[in-house]
Amino acid sequence: MPELLPRARASRESVFARMSRLAAHYGAVNLGQGFPADSPPAFLLEAARRAVGTLDQYSPPAGLPALRDAIGVDLGVDGADVIVTSGATEALNVLALSLYGPGDEVLMLEPVFDVYVPQTLLAGAVPVTVPMQLSSAGGWSLDLEALKAAVTPRTRALLLNSPYNPTGTIFSREELAGIVTLARKHDLWIISDEVYDELYFGERPVSLRELAPERTFTVGSAGKRLEATGWRVGWIACPPGEAGAGVAANIAGVRQQGSFCSPTPLQAAVASALPIARAEGFYEGLRAEYSARQTLLADGLRGLGATVFMPRGTYFLTALHPDWSAETLVERGVAVIPGEAFYWQHPAPQGLLRVAFCKSRDEIARALERLSAVTAAS
Amino acid sequence: MPELLPRARASRESVFARMSRLAAHYGAVNLGQGFPADSPPAFLLEAARRAVGTLDQYSPPAGLPALRDAIGVDLGVDGADVIVTSGATEALNVLALSLYGPGDEVLMLEPVFDVYVPQTLLAGAVPVTVPMQLSSAGGWSLDLEALKAAVTPRTRALLLNSPYNPTGTIFSREELAGIVTLARKHDLWIISDEVYDELYFGERPVSLRELAPERTFTVGSAGKRLEATGWRVGWIACPPGEAGAGVAANIAGVRQQGSFCSPTPLQAAVASALPIARAEGFYEGLRAEYSARQTLLADGLRGLGATVFMPRGTYFLTALHPDWSAETLVERGVAVIPGEAFYWQHPAPQGLLRVAFCKSRDEIARALERLSAVTAAS
Ligand SMILES: Cc1ncc(COP(=O)(O)O)c(C=O)c1O
Ligand SMILES: Cc1ncc(COP(=O)(O)O)c(C=O)c1O
Repeated sequence: MPELLPRARASRESVFARMSRLAAHYGAVNLGQGFPADSPPAFLLEAARRAVGTLDQYSPPAGLPALRDAIGVDLGVDGADVIVTSGATEALNVLALSLYGPGDEVLMLEPVFDVYVPQTLLAGAVPVTVPMQLSSAGGWSLDLEALKAAVTPRTRALLLNSPYNPTGTIFSREELAGIVTLARKHDLWIISDEVYDELYFGERPVSLRELAPERTFTVGSAGKRLEATGWRVGWIACPPGEAGAGVAANIAGVRQQGSFCSPTPLQAAVASALPIARAEGFYEGLRAEYSARQTLLADGLRGLGATVFMPRGTYFLTALHPDWSAETLVERGVAVIPGEAFYWQHPAPQGLLRVAFCKSRDEIARALERLSAVTAAS
Repeated sequence: MPELLPRARASRESVFARMSRLAAHYGAVNLGQGFPADSPPAFLLEAARRAVGTLDQYSPPAGLPALRDAIGVDLGVDGADVIVTSGATEALNVLALSLYGPGDEVLMLEPVFDVYVPQTLLAGAVPVTVPMQLSSAGGWSLDLEALKAAVTPRTRALLLNSPYNPTGTIFSREELAGIVTLARKHDLWIISDEVYDELYFGERPVSLRELAPERTFTVGSAGKRLEATGWRVGWIACPPGEAGAGVAANIAGVRQQGSFCSPTPLQAAVASALPIARAEGFYEGLRAEYSARQTLLADGLRGLGATVFMPRGTYFLTALHPDWSAETLVERGVAVIPGEAFYWQHPAPQGLLRVAFCKSRDEIARALERLSAVTAAS
C-alpha cells in the first residue's frame, strides 16, 4: 500500500476536538473548546432561514459582494480588499499557502493558537516561536527583544493574535508600534489574527492594520463575533490594492482552491447581520455578559486555590493550579484545555490551564461545584 | 513591500468564476458554471431551517457523526472511514496535501477539471496529464496505453473523474479494471472524483472503490446531488481502516487545518436529506428531468450546426462549432465554457465548448434563440 506523506501522518485530532470528545464521553461540563453556549442572535438566524431556499448556489470565491461590502464598512476598509473564507481557520490557511513556503520561517508567539504550527508546516515553511513571559504577579507580557532576536534572513512573516487566545492579552499601541518597526526593517508580512476583535473588556483593541496597512492581513470571524462558530464564515482584509487589483485578487485565487466559496446562504445572513449587530449594540451586550461570567468563573477558581490571569479580551482565561491536570479533570466532570496544547517548542508553564467562559452561568456554576469536590477530595 | 509566493501570484480567478461574472455583466443566459437553476428539494431546505438556531456551533472536523453515518449507509461503506469536507473542492485539496508533495507526480486526464492542476501545484507536486481521445464520430475515449506510458518512478497518484466533467464519459468496468491494474503495479493512490455519481443517463456508474478499496479515496458532493452547490458539504470515503483507526484519522487531521469543520447546520440538513432522497426517488426524478433538458439542448445545438457529444453522466455536454467562441458568445448573450479552460499541457480541440444543461428549460430555449441569432448574423 502507498503511504500518506509525513505531513499528513503527523496530522491528528487537535486537543480541542479531543477534549470535546472526552467531555461528551464523561458527561463533563465543557469549558474547553471555544464555542458559546448561547444561540446566535435572532436577527442572524432569521436572515439565514430567509436565505436558505433563495441563495443556495455557488457564490464568487472572494465572497458575496454584499458581504464583502458589509465587512469593509464594519472594518473601515474597501470591500474590494476583503476576501471571505470558510472561517478564520481557512483564512489563516490561505495566507500560509500564499505567503510562505519551503525555506521560509514564520515568527509567532508561544502559547500559540493550535492551527498556526501545523498550517505553517503544511505550507512547507518553518514555524519559529518566541515565548510570552508569565509571572504569577504580573501575568502575561510580550518580550519584544526576544522577538527581534528571533528574526533571521529567512523570516517572511509575523503571525500575531490580539486579543490573544489563550492569554487574553491585548497588545498596546506601543507594543504594536515596536512590532511594526521590526516588520518594516526586515520587510515582513504581518498576519494579524483578530477574531476576538469585539470581545474586549477595557479599551478597544488597536488593529495592526491601522499602523501598517501596506503589509498587514487582518483575519476575522463571524463565528466568534455572532456566536455561530459552526457557520464557517470568516474573512481576510488584505493590504489595499488599486481598485481591487492588488494582492486580494491572488489571495482569492488561492482561496478558491481551498473550499471554492463559503456557504452562500450563511454569507447572506452574515451580510445582513453585521450592520444590525453594530446598530443594535449587540457587541456591547456580549461584552457585558461575558464580563459577568468571567468574574463568576475567576472568583470561583481563585476560591479553589487557582492563580487566575484576567484576560483583557477573548472568552478564555488562563489559570495555574498546583493540583489540577486537564486529563484527570475531564474524568471528574470538567473539561478544560491543558497549557501544553499551546506550546510546541518551549515548555508550558507548570499547571497552566485555559478555561472558557463563553458557557452559560449554570455550566460555570456546575463546573465550579465539581472542581470544588475534586479539591476537597485531594 | 514583501511579495506573495509565486504559487500565489499564479493564482487567479477561474474561467468559471470569470464567465459567471461576464454573464452577469452582459445579461447573458449562464450555461457556463455548473450550478442548477432549480432550488434544492423542500425536504433539504426544511431540515436546514430547523437546524439553524439549534446546531450552530463547531462540529467535529471529521464531520457530524450523523452525517458520516448517513454517507456511509448511502455509499455502502463504514461511516468511520468517511470524512466530511467543505465541498468536494476541499476534499480534493485535503487529499492533495495528504498524498503528494515536492518530488511527486500526479497523473490525470485532459480535459481536466479546473482545480486539479492548481491544487497539485499548491501541494508542491507536479501534474502530468494524458489527453482523452476525441473523434467527431465516436466522441471521447480513454487512451489506457498513453496512461500507462505516462507513469514514472515519481508517480504517486491517479486522479480520475467519472462521470467525467466536461466530457460526460463514464468509464466502463473494463477500463476501471485496467486503471486498477496499473495502480496496483506501481503502488499508486487512486483519487476517484465521483461528484456526479447520481447524475447518469444509462447504466449506473461503477465506483473505483469497489474494485480497489485498499487504495481508493472516493470524493463526493452533497451540492451536486441535492442541487445546493453553495452549501459546501462534500466528503471523502477513505480506504477502510480498522475501527476508524486507519488513514481516515490522518485525513481528518489535515482537513481540520483547512476550514476546521463544514457548516454544522447544513451538515445536519444533509444528514437528514440523504436517506429521504434515496427513499423518495429524488435522484431518479433528477435524471429524468436532466435527460429531457439535455435532449432539448443537444437537438437545438445540432440544428445550429454544432457537433454534440452526448454525455453518459454529469449535467454538461461538449460540442464543437466552427464559428463560435465563448468570448464572443457571452457578449451576444450566452455564457458557455471554452474548451481551453480544461487543457493545461495539451492543445484543446479546436472549437470545443462545454455547455451546462442544469439550467431551466426556459433558459435553454432562450440561449438557443440567441445562438440562432448569432449564427444567422454570421
Ligand atoms: C485565535 C483564533 N484564531 C482563529 C480561530 C478560528 O476561528 P474560526 O472558527 O472562524 O475558524 C480561533 C478559534 O478558536 C481562534 O481562537
Ligand atoms: C468534477 C468535479 N469535481 C469537484 C467539483 C467541486 O464540487 P463542490 O461544489 O462540492 O466543491 C466539481 C464542481 O463543478 C466538479 O465538476
